[in-house]
Formats: sequence, structure tokens, C-alpha cells
Amino acid sequence: MSCEKNSESEFTGPQDIGIALQLWSELLGREHVRSDVQSLTAYTRSTASFSTQPLAVLSPKSTEEIVEIVRVAGKFRIPVYPISRGKNWGYGDACAVTEGQVIVDLSRMDRIIEVNEELAYAVIEPGVTQRQLSEYLRENNIPLWMDCTGAGPDTSLVGNILERGFGHSPYGNRFQTVAGLQIVLADGQVLKTGFGHYPQAKTTYLFPYGIGPYLDGIFTQSNLGIVTRLGLWLMPAAECINHFLCFIEKHEDIEPVVERLRPLRMNGTLRSIVHIGNDLRLISGGQTYPLEMSGGKVPLPQEVREKLRKQAGVGAWNVSGALYGTKQQVAIARRALAKALKGKGRELVFITDRKLAVGGFLLGLLGDSQWGRNLRGKLLAAKALFDMNRGIPSSRFLAGAYWRRRGGLPPNFPNQADPAADNCGMLWLSPVIPMLGNEVLRLYELIEPIFKQYGFDLFITVHMVTERALGSVITVAYNKEEMAETERALACYYTLFNAVMDAGYIPYRIGIQSMADLAHDSEVFWDVVSNIKSALDPYTIIAPGRYNPKSTTMPRPSLSSEAHPGFEEKSSSLNTIIKL
Amino acid sequence: MSCEKNSESEFTGPQDIGIALQLWSELLGREHVRSDVQSLTAYTRSTASFSTQPLAVLSPKSTEEIVEIVRVAGKFRIPVYPISRGKNWGYGDACAVTEGQVIVDLSRMDRIIEVNEELAYAVIEPGVTQRQLSEYLRENNIPLWMDCTGAGPDTSLVGNILERGFGHSPYGNRFQTVAGLQIVLADGQVLKTGFGHYPQAKTTYLFPYGIGPYLDGIFTQSNLGIVTRLGLWLMPAAECINHFLCFIEKHEDIEPVVERLRPLRMNGTLRSIVHIGNDLRLISGGQTYPLEMSGGKVPLPQEVREKLRKQAGVGAWNVSGALYGTKQQVAIARRALAKALKGKGRELVFITDRKLAVGGFLLGLLGDSQWGRNLRGKLLAAKALFDMNRGIPSSRFLAGAYWRRRGGLPPNFPNQADPAADNCGMLWLSPVIPMLGNEVLRLYELIEPIFKQYGFDLFITVHMVTERALGSVITVAYNKEEMAETERALACYYTLFNAVMDAGYIPYRIGIQSMADLAHDSEVFWDVVSNIKSALDPYTIIAPGRYNPKSTTMPRPSLSSEAHPGFEEKSSSLNTIIKL
Repeated sequence: MSCEKNSESEFTGPQDIGIALQLWSELLGREHVRSDVQSLTAYTRSTASFSTQPLAVLSPKSTEEIVEIVRVAGKFRIPVYPISRGKNWGYGDACAVTEGQVIVDLSRMDRIIEVNEELAYAVIEPGVTQRQLSEYLRENNIPLWMDCTGAGPDTSLVGNILERGFGHSPYGNRFQTVAGLQIVLADGQVLKTGFGHYPQAKTTYLFPYGIGPYLDGIFTQSNLGIVTRLGLWLMPAAECINHFLCFIEKHEDIEPVVERLRPLRMNGTLRSIVHIGNDLRLISGGQTYPLEMSGGKVPLPQEVREKLRKQAGVGAWNVSGALYGTKQQVAIARRALAKALKGKGRELVFITDRKLAVGGFLLGLLGDSQWGRNLRGKLLAAKALFDMNRGIPSSRFLAGAYWRRRGGLPPNFPNQADPAADNCGMLWLSPVIPMLGNEVLRLYELIEPIFKQYGFDLFITVHMVTERALGSVITVAYNKEEMAETERALACYYTLFNAVMDAGYIPYRIGIQSMADLAHDSEVFWDVVSNIKSALDPYTIIAPGRYNPKSTTMPRPSLSSEAHPGFEEKSSSLNTIIKL
Repeated sequence: MSCEKNSESEFTGPQDIGIALQLWSELLGREHVRSDVQSLTAYTRSTASFSTQPLAVLSPKSTEEIVEIVRVAGKFRIPVYPISRGKNWGYGDACAVTEGQVIVDLSRMDRIIEVNEELAYAVIEPGVTQRQLSEYLRENNIPLWMDCTGAGPDTSLVGNILERGFGHSPYGNRFQTVAGLQIVLADGQVLKTGFGHYPQAKTTYLFPYGIGPYLDGIFTQSNLGIVTRLGLWLMPAAECINHFLCFIEKHEDIEPVVERLRPLRMNGTLRSIVHIGNDLRLISGGQTYPLEMSGGKVPLPQEVREKLRKQAGVGAWNVSGALYGTKQQVAIARRALAKALKGKGRELVFITDRKLAVGGFLLGLLGDSQWGRNLRGKLLAAKALFDMNRGIPSSRFLAGAYWRRRGGLPPNFPNQADPAADNCGMLWLSPVIPMLGNEVLRLYELIEPIFKQYGFDLFITVHMVTERALGSVITVAYNKEEMAETERALACYYTLFNAVMDAGYIPYRIGIQSMADLAHDSEVFWDVVSNIKSALDPYTIIAPGRYNPKSTTMPRPSLSSEAHPGFEEKSSSLNTIIKL
């Protein structure tokens, strides 16, 4: 390659930061350029045990301001790190991959620029939250639904989509519902993808690919530009939804269940993303760690786990999904599903509009009795699930992050949930496996001994994110106020990471602590990514290290050798703040 | 940008071609390196009136040979132009964008590397044809179907997919059914996308996006690499298919029909790509130009057109699509479709397995009577349509290319169809419009006067390629043995091209004659493409000019000023062979 060497690896740190901050202040207004300790500290909050310290935080309001921000950054060679809402919980939250980057917080860019009812799409900025778009659609009586994730109402749609997150509806493979990006490049040029670069184009938000190379993909999970606008397809409100839950008693029975569901996912009977969670994942959605019941023991003793499983009425595995369509279509899909899942120990339950109404009526009758309280809990959970299918977000599904939190769920939960601010300890790892029943068991057998070794409760979900692959999410939940536990959690994470990588179950998304490890065992790919980076951002202004392991030397959070002997050789973390 | 200037624009032509050919001969074997006039001439055959002359044709058998080809090409700065099967009819056939490139014909790379029945995918090389994969699946009793286009059995699957072509089934948006590419880059490195660059990965062909930037899109409609392997998803054989045809009498009625079909496409009732063709598009599928009937007049007089329309039993517009699913699902979809299309002058016909069987039986009874012959024609057409839905390709749909051919359909049609070799005159233009009824009428009103002005018959189809956009294909069919008509056809094409671009109906794909015009009115996008090209291919070894208008100066085919006064200023074509 004739391009000059990727200067990312020669990054020597910011110069003239004072002048840059001054220029930015003139540009954005003083209140939108923050470098005081208190402000910076807020951006280091993380559900991980480590975080990185930003140099400053900028809060632009427009694409034009971002253009000016990168121009100044380029002039002074100061790296800028865009975040949408900074709620990338479990994967690094609002933190840059390395120390000393300037956070560009896009939360003030929260305009819903257009909603086209006829052709069913919205054009939004990165600051638009799930709640905001959802409410906009309902308040304006627009019969369109957005896809929704369980990450809560205050998360950014664009941020999640650019991380290739997935939701729960037929539009759950969110990247496939994007058409037309607007991106600020490192040199300050504004790129419009699809047909958007032709100002007269009539189908920018209707046809993602445009003509010529289809570029959108390179701006997802990348540091090649700052996306400032995105066309998002919305689904027409369905005539009918049925949410289904299937509780599987025996661990091994997940194998035939996946085998029976795969054909339904492939033939279009199950058009939405089906989620399968183990017992602890569901139990942790309803309560925090039962210290009293377990006699202070951690992790959960088997007999307590079984008791909780019974109490919560959940199985070893639990399938959750929704059927969409006309009443007739849903009725047919229900029958196909019931037929596929028929067998011992598999209870299939449908949540419908009617059942929720009847439940609400019963609740009125039962009042504050024990039965009433039990019903209320289940009904609220069912309602939240059902709503999510229609694009109404809830914080309720964040409860798992609080599992080991000292003090349990905060009083304002779930109305105000922020696992990072609430000092929850949680690390996520999300390997992709083939959609085969035995692969679910294999993954489980791979990770179970590691959870045992480090003494954590194993939460896992697998998601039918494509018709052929399961995206899994493995949670390491820990008490962040216990130093030893915190270190063990990180060690557990790294052991899990290495295990899934070695097994060929590569994650679909990764936390900032593992960006540098992505190059491991890989051939050519990351060099190509670095080459493209050099072409578009020769001074590595935008988000050094993010999904770009071949460039800068990235620090690793430290681990004491006690927590995981032999691990320290991989870590180098003088620059990293350990937050306990 | 700090990268050295894109050297593409400084391309000074091949040096030491003799030595390079010698090296390639040693590498591939003498018979797979051709530079004799006869061989080269075969590659200049085009349905267009112009073509480009290659320097030589190389026919590698493996990825390793391609690596060596690009290494030699890089050393001597000789541009190489990959083609899969060279049947890109209507868009430039097997021709490079500019003169003097070395064609790399991948048709010998025709291995079906893997078919995974359980997870429903195939891994194929670029030389694999539609016929080959289709027969492989049937001969091995594998209950999977591939998506099929109407371009005939001998076309390449990979070639069409990399041009982002679309087919007819629920997998008709073909790019969305790709996971895992293998690509030879200009420097000889072999890139594997998705998770494929991790040798141990278990989900390379199951999850397209991998981790980090999703690169696949930049290798479609591009000159950034040579794709040598592709993971292609196959659909499980459906329990039931119904093909439907709807004949719309009145031109204006296409508006409400599109309005009524859009909700069905959006809500998943119509999961496959619906095709809508005008009367002439369908008539030309069954016969060539009726010179006798029209008294030698060209284009078709209105009264003859109406007569033919009646004879063929087609409407002003004709909707064609298929319903897939279980019997129940198809039955429900049928009812929804019938309800949506209910109204005057809209005849809805379903082709089913049963009807075809009954038809075959009747045919036996009627024998070679007039009724029998009529039935036979319709039955064969219906059978070909029905088969295509199940992934069985046919050449029958190429008939339109022969409309103005002197001598009509060749005797071996449709068993052996090759419009370029058969000297058919055809140019395609494929603007994308919003999926709105009035936009179809607007597009028609835009192009009709142009067809009138230049004296051609207007063939158009629109395809519900996404849930929100219609991809159209406009055909300029002409008699290539008439010089004046040939020149008029090209002039007509350019006028149409400018008209649709100005109207904001940008094409989803383009012929080689328009590559240079893509930069017109565009902002930033093509500069970014050029930057990426410079990073991956600094000496512009691979396919100069292909979907990269900002690089080399590309010659335009010549037009006499008679055909289109004022046009010559745009053309510069000393290097271009006009083939008449």
C-alpha cells in the first residue's frame, strides 16, 4: 500500500489543548464545552470496573458544529470520541477506548427530522431516544411502530443501530431497516450514503444501497466517521400481536426446542426475533440477589436457585417472542408454534390484548391481597413485554444489571434506571453461535465451568437474530463495591472471552476492554480496516482504537495476579482508572 | 487526505505486456491466456452498440491463481477486469469500462464448495451458474431452493449478486442473503469478511456482519477487489406456492393497484418480489416485432399494439408474483390479495401445481389443434414462471431482448439464448422510484415522450424490490443491424438517463457507458469511494472506472450528431469500437 503509514500508531497525545478548547467554546458556547472534574467524572461511570478519562466533553447541536469540531480536532491532532447517549451499558458505557480523548456527546442532537407515514420511515438524529420516537408516534396518532430494545427508554436509537444491536420485532435486525446515513468525516466533509449524495434523489430513505459501493456497513462498529442522521424504517402497526412464552423444564430440552423453532424462523412463521433466556436471566429480571435466602453465600446455591425458579414459575430455559399479522395470520402461526413445541415439560403461554385486559379487571377485584400482589407483578411484566413488541420501551428489562448491587433495586426503579450511575457491576459478552440445539448446549458447557471457577451466577440469553445464527448475551453481574469480586469479574470476563474466541463463537459486538484483542488470530481483515481508516482519517482524529485493533496501542485495565494468575502479562494499564 | 493522489487518473497504459502475458501463461497454462483476435472479439460482443476491446483474457481456476494474476498485474501496472460469466446483458455484457484492460474470466471457477442442508446455505465460486446450483440441489434431493432471476440458466449467481441484482422469491433481495465473502485484493492479499477472517469461526456463513466494520457492501458494484467465494443463503422448500397474475386493463389503474399492494408488501403478506410489467414488456416475451402486421412501420402503431394486447390476453399493466408458505398461509394471503385487487378491469389468476397438472392433461387431449397450440404456449409460460419461483431458471424471459432482432427468435430459443452472441440490440436503464402509485405514472409520463421522440417501443417493468421502493427496468430494444436505429437507441438511452437522474429517480445499477456520468450532481460520495480505492488499490489494478467515476477519464461511445444533435460534446470515443 502506498498510503503513508497509519499515523494512529504514532499518536503522541494532544497539543495545544487549551487553544482547541477555546476555539470550541467560541463555536459551541462555553456551557457546551466541559473539562471540569465533575463533568468528566460523570462520563467515566461504567458498569465495568474500569473506565477511561476524557480530556473534555463537547455537546454540539448540529452537523455544522460537528464539522467545525473535527476541523479543530484535526488541526491540533486531538482525538474526538462520539457517543450518542452514552448508555452502551455492559460494553463500555460512555467511555472512549483510550485515555485522553475528547467526548463528543450527541445527546443535544435530538431532532426527529421527518416521519413519513405513507412510506413508513423516520429520519432521526443520534440524540433521539427510544422513548422520544415512541411517544412522538403515539402522540401524533401515527400508526407506525418502531423496533424497541430492552435497554430502556433513554437509550439512543442511532447509537444502538450503529453498534448493530437487535430488538424484538420483525424489524429487530435493526441494521436492515436503515436507509440513508449522513456522516461527518474526519476532514469535515459531510457524506450522504445511499442515493442521498444526489440532492435531487427521491428514494434516499427507501432504498438503502444507492448506486456504486454500498458504504453504510463500514460506518457501523467503526471509527470511520460520525453519523449525524439516519433514515429508519418503521413497521405498520399490526392488526394483531400475540406474545408467547414457553417454559422449558429440563436444561437438555433446549436442544430439541431450538431444532423445532429453527424451521419456523426460516419459513417466515416467526418473523420477529425470538429470545431464549436461562432461569437466572429471568429470575434476575424480577429481583436482586437473595442474600438472606442463600445465607450470605455467593454464588447462588443450587437448592436456592431451584426454589427461586419455582417461585418465579420459570423453566431452565424460557422462550419469548411475538407473532405479528392479521388475526388469521397470528392464529395460524400460533397453531404452528404449539405443534412445534408440543411435548412434556414445555408450557406455552400466550399474552394477548384480551388477557391483559382481563388481568387488569381481576387486579381491580383482588386489590392489595397476596394474590393481587402476585398478579400485579406478573401483569406488569407481561404488559412491559407486550408493549415492547409495539415499540413502547421499558426500563424493567434492565433489572438484571442490579442483581448483585448492594442495596438492591433503587427506589425509583424502573422509572429511572441507569445501571452505570447506580453503580451496578455488569460485563457483557455476546458470542454468535450456529442456530443448532446442540450448539446452545455446547456454549453452555463451555462457559459453565468458568462461571463456577470464578464464583458467579450464569445469566445467558440466546436470540434468533438471523434465521441461521443465535446471538447470545452472557452477563457477568457482580458487586462493584467488593474489590475482590470486581477483579474476579473482570478475570472471569477475559477467560470467557478467550474461551468463546477459541471455540469459534466470535462476538457480534464487544466492550472497549476487548477492542485490542480482536486482532488475535485474525487474518488480513483488520489490516484492511486500518487501510481504510488511513484513507478517511489519516491523523486518526475519530475514536482511535474503536473496532480498529491494528492501530494504536491500547491500555488494558489492570488485574491483580490473585484474581487470575498468569493474566497480568496481557494487561498494561497504568493509564486506566480502576473504579470501585 | 494525506494519501498519495489516486494514481488511477494518471494511468499511462500497460508496459511490458509481453512479459506479463508470458508470466501468466506459465502460471495458468498457455490455453488459459488468450490474446488472439478471435478470442478477444468474442468478449466484445454486446447488446449495446459499442464495446471495449480487452488486451487479453485470462481464465484462472483458483483463488491462488488470481492472487498471482494481480501480483503480475501490479508489477506491470496492467489493469485487470474480473467478470463472472460475462452475461451482464443490457449493462455492458463482458466488456470492461475502458479499452485495454485484461479480462479475468472467472467461469472456470465453478465449484459448489459446500451445501449445508440443515442451516440452508451454499458456498459458491463466481463461475457457478443458476442452472448448476439449481440442478445440484434437485439431483441431490436437497429440499432447498435458490432465488432465481429471469436472466437465464447460464448466468452467474455471484456476478448478479455483486451487481445487487434481484430475483423473484422471498430471497429476491439477493444481497441480504449473502454471508461470508472471500476477496482477492489488488495487493494479492485474500480478505475474508464476516467472521471468516477468524479461521476457527463457526458462523461465517450464518451471520453476515461479523465484528467491526461490515465490509461486504463495498465489494458490491465496485472495483475494490475480486470476489472469489460467496456464502449464499437458500430457502427451505415451501410446502405451497401460488403464482399470481393480475391483468390491469386501464393504464391509470396502476396507481390504485400499487397503493393497495404496498400495505401487503409491508406487512409481510407479499414476502417475495412482485414484478409489474406493461403490455409491451409482456407481449415481447412471447414474440418478436410483428413487421407484417404493422405494415413495416416502426415503432408499433397504437392499433396493432391493442390488437396484440388482446391476442396475448394482457393488460396495460400486469402484476406477477408468488405466495409462499404452508397451504394455510398461502390461502390467507390469496384472500388478502384478492380483496386488495378487487375492482373493475382487474383479472386475478392463480397458477398452482394442480392447475399445471390439469393443463398438462388437457394438452394431451387437445393435441396439435389450434386450441392445443394456444394452451401449450400459455402453459409453457406459466410453467416457466412457476418453476422460477422454486429456483429453476429459464431462458424464456430473455425473449424481450430479441424484439427488434432481424430474423426474430433463433431456432434454438429458448434452449440456448445469448442475446449478445445473437446480435440483439438492447440497453437497460433501471431507476428506483418511491413505491407510490402516482410515481409509477410520473415515471411513465417522463419517459413516454422520449420513446416517442426517438421512435422506440416502451418496455418497462417495476419491481417491489424493497417494501418501500420500486426498482424499474426500462428497455430500449432496437435492430442492431440498422445503423441509424442503433445510433438513435443510444441517443434515446442517454436522454432517458439524464431525464431520470434530473427527476431524482437514480438507477440502482448502470451500464458501462454511464459509469463516468455517475459523478454528475453528486456531492462527496464518489470522492470517498476514490479515497478507499486509493487505499486498497493505489495503482488501480482492478477494473478502472467501474463504479468509480472520479478516477480515470473514461471514453464515451460516439454518436453521430444526426442521431442526437448537441450530444457530441459529451462523447469522446476514439478508443471505442462501434459494433454494428
